[in-house]
Amino acid sequence: MKPTIVRTIERPEAKDVAQLGELGVATVHEAQGRRGLMKPYLRPIYPGAKAAGPAITVLCHPGDNLMIHAAVEVCRPGDVMVVAVVAESTDGMFGELLATSLRAHGVVGMVIDAGSRDIAKLTEMNFPVWSRAVSAQGTVKETAGSVNVDVVCAGAIVHPGDVIVGDQDGVVVVPRARAAEIAKLGEQRSAKEEGTRERLRSGELGLDIYSLRAKLAALGVEYLG
Amino acid sequence: MKPTIVRTIERPEAKDVAQLGELGVATVHEAQGRRGLMKPYLRPIYPGAKAAGPAITVLCHPGDNLMIHAAVEVCRPGDVMVVAVVAESTDGMFGELLATSLRAHGVVGMVIDAGSRDIAKLTEMNFPVWSRAVSAQGTVKETAGSVNVDVVCAGAIVHPGDVIVGDQDGVVVVPRARAAEIAKLGEQRSAKEEGTRERLRSGELGLDIYSLRAKLAALGVEYLG
Amino acid sequence: MKPTIVRTIERPEAKDVAQLGELGVATVHEAQGRRGLMKPYLRPIYPGAKAAGPAITVLCHPGDNLMIHAAVEVCRPGDVMVVAVVAESTDGMFGELLATSLRAHGVVGMVIDAGSRDIAKLTEMNFPVWSRAVSAQGTVKETAGSVNVDVVCAGAIVHPGDVIVGDQDGVVVVPRARAAEIAKLGEQRSAKEEGTRERLRSGELGLDIYSLRAKLAALGVEYLG
Amino acid sequence: MKPTIVRTIERPEAKDVAQLGELGVATVHEAQGRRGLMKPYLRPIYPGAKAAGPAITVLCHPGDNLMIHAAVEVCRPGDVMVVAVVAESTDGMFGELLATSLRAHGVVGMVIDAGSRDIAKLTEMNFPVWSRAVSAQGTVKETAGSVNVDVVCAGAIVHPGDVIVGDQDGVVVVPRARAAEIAKLGEQRSAKEEGTRERLRSGELGLDIYSLRAKLAALGVEYLG
Amino acid sequence: MKPTIVRTIERPEAKDVAQLGELGVATVHEAQGRRGLMKPYLRPIYPGAKAAGPAITVLCHPGDNLMIHAAVEVCRPGDVMVVAVVAESTDGMFGELLATSLRAHGVVGMVIDAGSRDIAKLTEMNFPVWSRAVSAQGTVKETAGSVNVDVVCAGAIVHPGDVIVGDQDGVVVVPRARAAEIAKLGEQRSAKEEGTRERLRSGELGLDIYSLRAKLAALGVEYLG
Amino acid sequence: MKPTIVRTIERPEAKDVAQLGELGVATVHEAQGRRGLMKPYLRPIYPGAKAAGPAITVLCHPGDNLMIHAAVEVCRPGDVMVVAVVAESTDGMFGELLATSLRAHGVVGMVIDAGSRDIAKLTEMNFPVWSRAVSAQGTVKETAGSVNVDVVCAGAIVHPGDVIVGDQDGVVVVPRARAAEIAKLGEQRSAKEEGTRERLRSGELGLDIYSLRAKLAALGVEYLG
Repeated sequence: MKPTIVRTIERPEAKDVAQLGELGVATVHEAQGRRGLMKPYLRPIYPGAKAAGPAITVLCHPGDNLMIHAAVEVCRPGDVMVVAVVAESTDGMFGELLATSLRAHGVVGMVIDAGSRDIAKLTEMNFPVWSRAVSAQGTVKETAGSVNVDVVCAGAIVHPGDVIVGDQDGVVVVPRARAAEIAKLGEQRSAKEEGTRERLRSGELGLDIYSLRAKLAALGVEYLG
Repeated sequence: MKPTIVRTIERPEAKDVAQLGELGVATVHEAQGRRGLMKPYLRPIYPGAKAAGPAITVLCHPGDNLMIHAAVEVCRPGDVMVVAVVAESTDGMFGELLATSLRAHGVVGMVIDAGSRDIAKLTEMNFPVWSRAVSAQGTVKETAGSVNVDVVCAGAIVHPGDVIVGDQDGVVVVPRARAAEIAKLGEQRSAKEEGTRERLRSGELGLDIYSLRAKLAALGVEYLG
Repeated sequence: MKPTIVRTIERPEAKDVAQLGELGVATVHEAQGRRGLMKPYLRPIYPGAKAAGPAITVLCHPGDNLMIHAAVEVCRPGDVMVVAVVAESTDGMFGELLATSLRAHGVVGMVIDAGSRDIAKLTEMNFPVWSRAVSAQGTVKETAGSVNVDVVCAGAIVHPGDVIVGDQDGVVVVPRARAAEIAKLGEQRSAKEEGTRERLRSGELGLDIYSLRAKLAALGVEYLG
Repeated sequence: MKPTIVRTIERPEAKDVAQLGELGVATVHEAQGRRGLMKPYLRPIYPGAKAAGPAITVLCHPGDNLMIHAAVEVCRPGDVMVVAVVAESTDGMFGELLATSLRAHGVVGMVIDAGSRDIAKLTEMNFPVWSRAVSAQGTVKETAGSVNVDVVCAGAIVHPGDVIVGDQDGVVVVPRARAAEIAKLGEQRSAKEEGTRERLRSGELGLDIYSLRAKLAALGVEYLG
Repeated sequence: MKPTIVRTIERPEAKDVAQLGELGVATVHEAQGRRGLMKPYLRPIYPGAKAAGPAITVLCHPGDNLMIHAAVEVCRPGDVMVVAVVAESTDGMFGELLATSLRAHGVVGMVIDAGSRDIAKLTEMNFPVWSRAVSAQGTVKETAGSVNVDVVCAGAIVHPGDVIVGDQDGVVVVPRARAAEIAKLGEQRSAKEEGTRERLRSGELGLDIYSLRAKLAALGVEYLG
Repeated sequence: MKPTIVRTIERPEAKDVAQLGELGVATVHEAQGRRGLMKPYLRPIYPGAKAAGPAITVLCHPGDNLMIHAAVEVCRPGDVMVVAVVAESTDGMFGELLATSLRAHGVVGMVIDAGSRDIAKLTEMNFPVWSRAVSAQGTVKETAGSVNVDVVCAGAIVHPGDVIVGDQDGVVVVPRARAAEIAKLGEQRSAKEEGTRERLRSGELGLDIYSLRAKLAALGVEYLG
């Protein structure tokens, strides 16, 4: 538990990451058996925010963003940074200057279990951030933490290199080793849903499509009127 | 308290519903004596969301949307679905597939005392939803519940066929039998407010328009400086 | 502690107010040593909301907006109204009619530690409001309070005439007497940040710009991999 | 929706009320099919608080206890008062003086969807209260409300004369007409649980008592190690 | 706004402090016109906690208790320490060791707008603490703050030397200069309440004691049944 | 991610567990570098609750306690059960019957990131429980989950066999492999604190004991008065 910065991590295949990003949070979450969802208090800072990439994990003290700075140089283009804190905080630990730095290094999104700020500028930059609060509360750069260790962010375990997918529905984590499998399962689910969508659009009922009438009867649900 | 699906309900007059929808939540709430407002934790999923219609009520177990499916076939064009849960939950019990089904049956909005998901797609569809959270957390279809019974949704009693009005300000419930009366009272209030608005716009003070100076004096409020 | 309305207050220089408004909440908050920030539960009612001006302070009973009406006539063009309540409330104490009145008197924004309503119309009017909730819950005009006394709003002390700056990041209070000084410090900070931004954009690291490598070493942070 | 005080209500049989009170909240809630539970934010003000009785319902404005005073004279010995408010509030609307009055009229408990105060004295009096907050915030006696109308208290519908049961686990509402039936079902459940308790105490497993092993297998749960 | 420790403060008369402490939070809060109450999220760590004394104010960074240590030597026997933080935190900034130190210097209570810890030991010591959370989360001693400046604690302004009264109902602040006046008003209120209590105990109604029947009639409240 | 029950886990040395339990949550949390603390929303159900033991981990669906039943037979005397849920819930998933079963198998405590019920009986049994809510809301036994897999409970990662320590201050997790080391570090810390306690009791200042005066000066803190 010494504070540590791990420089090199294994990353998933870029094509799996891309596919997971296209599928979106809800589908990916379903495809991996309803696991890995971060808590819903994490919200995107603007409508339409969307990102997918391997996780660079950062463990910070609340109100201290030293380790975010330390993490920048181990990022590679396409990564998503995931910041966890050791105690609850809404302080604005991430803003436009750090986003400028991350973008310069190719990072495509930020997930932070604390506050973000400079929202107007981040929106203008189209830099996607998921945070638990918006707060201008400034931070210091004084306390040790770690980079690329396992963290708990908004209730989900994240290992360095896991795939992070974020959109309007929140953020989901896919273990690196399962990226290809989940991408495939997600595609299948998505294809199947397209058929269901057409049937529903034509007025067919979910009750019939999913054969739920027998279940209602078995559960003793009674029809009146 | 056996789980029950009531197929036929009485609905209010379409013109009263339309008028209440045009008046909007704040005016309707005032017109009926400041009753029937759902709690403010219920928020529209996109700016500009707006709907009015007779309530189809659904009582679900948290994390289980079986009864939403069961409720679709008793809906008629113009209805608004209202989903209550027996214990608190933020799970994403309603998303784009169910919205597709509801739209195919003419339902014009969804009010759910739980979570919603597929927000980007629902926004694109322009399908208005009021929910207490956005969460991709998936749900099952396993537990009995009821359709078209009296429910408590976000702190308000809703009877099947009551008028639901939702907009940016939240959601309000008008008892079916009072729809015409409240629509009329709302119109009167709205007309009166138009006059007040003009006077305020010209710089006249609420203090004078509402004759509040005497009240301030009676309450012992002192002017200084 | 008699209820009091103070008619005349001292105001800061208009050019300092304007400059603080341009700097924005995060920069101003930093410039004055990370003080004066209102709690992050106060949110703007629409993206892009922005205002700066001297504070007209109002102390109300929850669910009662009598004193907001009383405060209108002591406002001058350019002011921002700040409403505090003596007990917690989310009731919609401020809406479009009052905003119409405030605008007629030149008030440029509203900060309220309670609820606001008529959000669609306020957005259309482009009248910026920061509130803790959106709620149609109507209010009465029955209880005494004060205007232009010191108040605590969302955790920050506000004296009449202090500069209020609000934007997407929240709301910050600058003591009137320090307006010029903080504006100047903010300008310096902003200029310095512009240089940092350029260096970060070119890929230089915060670790090097802020000389943090020695600190990491001193804190015993170890590099692996 | 005119403010109304209903003087006479129908009450359940005293013996059913007593029996429901002895069974306690968890058992009663189960016996009536997991309905009627108030939300868990309602907490007893001291350990060991316990009460059961027919509901006298009161609908108040937040921060105004006029209608609680109005309700006292329609109470009968054994009643429990249930106070709902039209908008959320934590103000201390109920304290020792009102408890003294209620006790003088034989009322055996108070359930209030707002704040309570004088906790030390109420504890000394052994007067059981369930409230959502403890707050000394004082209240006025200015606004009309109703007594013995249907209300929603902490998420549950309460009709005048329904049985209220409160203990350490919270508060549950039993419809008056079902009091005898639920008391009987609760007794059966309680008797059955006694048998289960003995078997569990002797080390037998719930897996075997409830025949859950087949379910685990059917659900595909795999044993390792 | 330089970090400052003010060594000497003016204190109220000991007899006024004692009297305010005996009256308790609810009565004092009423006596000074329902002002000065801290928010109800501040709770005593054990039943029966009770304290009154002049405030030593401390402004800390969240998660840093350096300034609490700095404040100890300016305390005098009978003081109550009040700790405010510049950003929200639940970290356990105060525990048994600091309580031991405070007690050695005669301090009679602690009010902290953050977390406390070592609850079992503090209870054993009978050292009263009001905090917003219980958390073992440890803190550092690294950041400057101030002692004996004006602070906002749990929503209330506290000036050094103001009287702090805490009990089961929460915490209230009485401005130093008004201590004698409020103590007297509180006594009068308390005496009057004693009479009311007797009348209520004998079964007389608040409706009659406070002459509320006319008000009910004026408000249009109708009696039925 | 197939649902799995792992029968055999490695456990820490009993003497290390006992020592960690005696040290208590705050000391253990400090001793391991301020890691492993569960969030402070987890509270003991009665004052004085205290437990330490190796973790049997359980992953449940919210509102479903099937897997708690499944976990009982893999417990050994001295274990503490830790229940995590896949989505947020306050339902009362644990009560007196299950506690009876756990006690019969020697389990010494329960940590559950959901609700508990039968609080009066659990208190009488002196069976320690840490939960996020008290709620009578009943649960079903229908959904697969896992036993003895890694879980996130109240924000902390728990591996089967990790040491769980719970008391009034909350719950902390010590990795199994570090149990002996942390117990030793905790002892040292505790011994050192005893010395500090004595010095503080005699009136010596933390400022002097921890040599903080130089730090205050370096930080620019100024003394006045």
